[in-house]
Amino acid sequence: MSSPAKSPTVLTCKAAVAWGPGEPLAMEYVQVDPPKSMEIRIKVFCSSLCRSDVTQWESKAQPSLFPRIFGHEASGVVESVGEGLTEFEVGDHVLTVFIGECQRCKHCVSGRSNMCQKLGLERNGFMHTDQKTRFSIEGRPVYHYCAVSSFSEYTVVHSGCAVKISKDTPMDRVCLLSCGVAAGLGAVSKVADVSEGSTVVIFGLGTVGLSVAQAAKLRGASQIIGVDTNPHKFEKGKAFGVTSFINPNDCDEPIPQAIKRLTDGGADYAFECIGDTGAVSTALQSCSDAWGVTVSLGVPKANPEVSVHYGLLLSGKTLKGSLFGGWRPKTDLPSLVLKYMEKEIHLEDFVTHDITFDNINEAFNLMKEGDCLRCVIHMEN
Amino acid sequence: MSSPAKSPTVLTCKAAVAWGPGEPLAMEYVQVDPPKSMEIRIKVFCSSLCRSDVTQWESKAQPSLFPRIFGHEASGVVESVGEGLTEFEVGDHVLTVFIGECQRCKHCVSGRSNMCQKLGLERNGFMHTDQKTRFSIEGRPVYHYCAVSSFSEYTVVHSGCAVKISKDTPMDRVCLLSCGVAAGLGAVSKVADVSEGSTVVIFGLGTVGLSVAQAAKLRGASQIIGVDTNPHKFEKGKAFGVTSFINPNDCDEPIPQAIKRLTDGGADYAFECIGDTGAVSTALQSCSDAWGVTVSLGVPKANPEVSVHYGLLLSGKTLKGSLFGGWRPKTDLPSLVLKYMEKEIHLEDFVTHDITFDNINEAFNLMKEGDCLRCVIHMEN
Repeated sequence: MSSPAKSPTVLTCKAAVAWGPGEPLAMEYVQVDPPKSMEIRIKVFCSSLCRSDVTQWESKAQPSLFPRIFGHEASGVVESVGEGLTEFEVGDHVLTVFIGECQRCKHCVSGRSNMCQKLGLERNGFMHTDQKTRFSIEGRPVYHYCAVSSFSEYTVVHSGCAVKISKDTPMDRVCLLSCGVAAGLGAVSKVADVSEGSTVVIFGLGTVGLSVAQAAKLRGASQIIGVDTNPHKFEKGKAFGVTSFINPNDCDEPIPQAIKRLTDGGADYAFECIGDTGAVSTALQSCSDAWGVTVSLGVPKANPEVSVHYGLLLSGKTLKGSLFGGWRPKTDLPSLVLKYMEKEIHLEDFVTHDITFDNINEAFNLMKEGDCLRCVIHMEN
Repeated sequence: MSSPAKSPTVLTCKAAVAWGPGEPLAMEYVQVDPPKSMEIRIKVFCSSLCRSDVTQWESKAQPSLFPRIFGHEASGVVESVGEGLTEFEVGDHVLTVFIGECQRCKHCVSGRSNMCQKLGLERNGFMHTDQKTRFSIEGRPVYHYCAVSSFSEYTVVHSGCAVKISKDTPMDRVCLLSCGVAAGLGAVSKVADVSEGSTVVIFGLGTVGLSVAQAAKLRGASQIIGVDTNPHKFEKGKAFGVTSFINPNDCDEPIPQAIKRLTDGGADYAFECIGDTGAVSTALQSCSDAWGVTVSLGVPKANPEVSVHYGLLLSGKTLKGSLFGGWRPKTDLPSLVLKYMEKEIHLEDFVTHDITFDNINEAFNLMKEGDCLRCVIHMEN
């Protein structure tokens, strides 16, 4: 039997702190509170950079939420456990998740939704439970991002926002399942439920779009059309299952027309993975008038309003949204990790850069310029 | 054995002709061509007035399509049969349908769509097959509406736009299944697939909205909330299953907030039956963030663009459109007729007025003023 753990105390560690919108992250020593009831403190092992970290870091919409620690796609080891918590033990390997699963609220118990009413998407820079931060610098609060904030050597998360993984899981790759890759996989297999032999069009071949391609290929889609303005994306896309490519800059007919021509009347499924509400309309126009399903995955950087001509719906089309691919994190993520371990899902091809924590700004620059898929940031230099 | 039918010839009969947008219909003698190959000529028995007849009659968008004969919700008897057609015989009782089913195109054979590629919604005032009219007045073409034009003693339709019914079916009531009532029933049972015990909100308690209520009640919905600015609609609605009523004019909080309060977080299903794209957004806001399904049934009179904040979709909501309730007319309508005959579906309560053909303008006025549900126009005075 192990001896009872000592009560955890405040610790000091290195974190990449954003002091203002778009300002390069500064490596700072921050104080990390001990985990409160139902929380765990994690020693972060790896954290991959997601486009939404960069979007929120650049955004001037909430200047009061700085200084802030970004990062949410992370793997790590439980360092200490809050009072009353039996689900986790010190030393457990975990993935963090940016939407939690309390497993008790109406939505969680329904089994039909991943929109936990208690641990949903946190937008105010706090922990869900007490609207306070667990980070500070000399007494000044440092705000969280999505109640995860994994660009720190240590972080505190609610136990509902962590998923236990087996200790033989490669932590530097499985962190990709924390957000973007899982989002794409789920949009195909859980939200749209793509059927064998169907035709698929993907707007935007970033990590999310390529995950959609990977999942569509697994489902046996007969045609997977990628749409992206970056001509290099076609070669990359092929490895993930993309069968044909449209570059809007080289296309001399409207995109929906080109897709309807390629698919004999419109794609069965369309996925918007750019984060452009205009592309949602284009996606709807590109799918079959009769049974086309369009799934919107992206979080728009600008205009948040999707405009849809009613006639596009009238014929029987469906427009759905999806966050984290519809997966319930604690319930569903373990099976995705298993599929990765069994080599059904491939994560390695998404990793374009392995970067040390000290060089984290390099990852932000690469993502800003669109020169990467996933940069994995290794916390131990 | 019956003797071979004589080749049908042009006949002359009375029709209610619209000479211009919004102009009172004029009773005229029109020439009706014999049915061409794959067509039938029908002696119309009854025709109920649908809101879309009035909307298109009032519309100034296509002035070149006048003179025109409206009407599409009709029952009648086959008067003559075009060459090569074995499906119908003279004397058959039929319902007309405003979208046909060729049973051969990609969409029809899929079994997943009612958007026939050959006999879809006809908007140009012609017959689908040859872009010509079958009506004329002294040689001048008179345009069709939805390739049905049932406000005439006789009309010609494609055999794919008619459904045989048993001769004991009350023709003066079953015509309601030709469009509006079927649209509401199908939106619930086929498109949304409403489950027992669920909560439903209906925007607009006209014939379509009340059909939605009737179907939701049949499905065992636990709560059916009607939203309408006409306070008389609540009493009417109760008979169809509406359990609570919101009048936007009397509501001192935003409608979505009121509905979320009544349904503990949002309705499971929302139906837009007004024909107001703004109400589609309100409907989406009123349904459950987690699994809310909004079905748009209405054809807007004004702004055709539905505007949806992406965040409404992100959490997992679904927006669908539906024409004719998703029913494939020839395949599915017979079973609806049967349900009516077995008293599972009630049509009588929708009929607020029985009107003689000569008084058809009265029906148009009632519909314009919102003072009716269905006016059944009886062709034989």
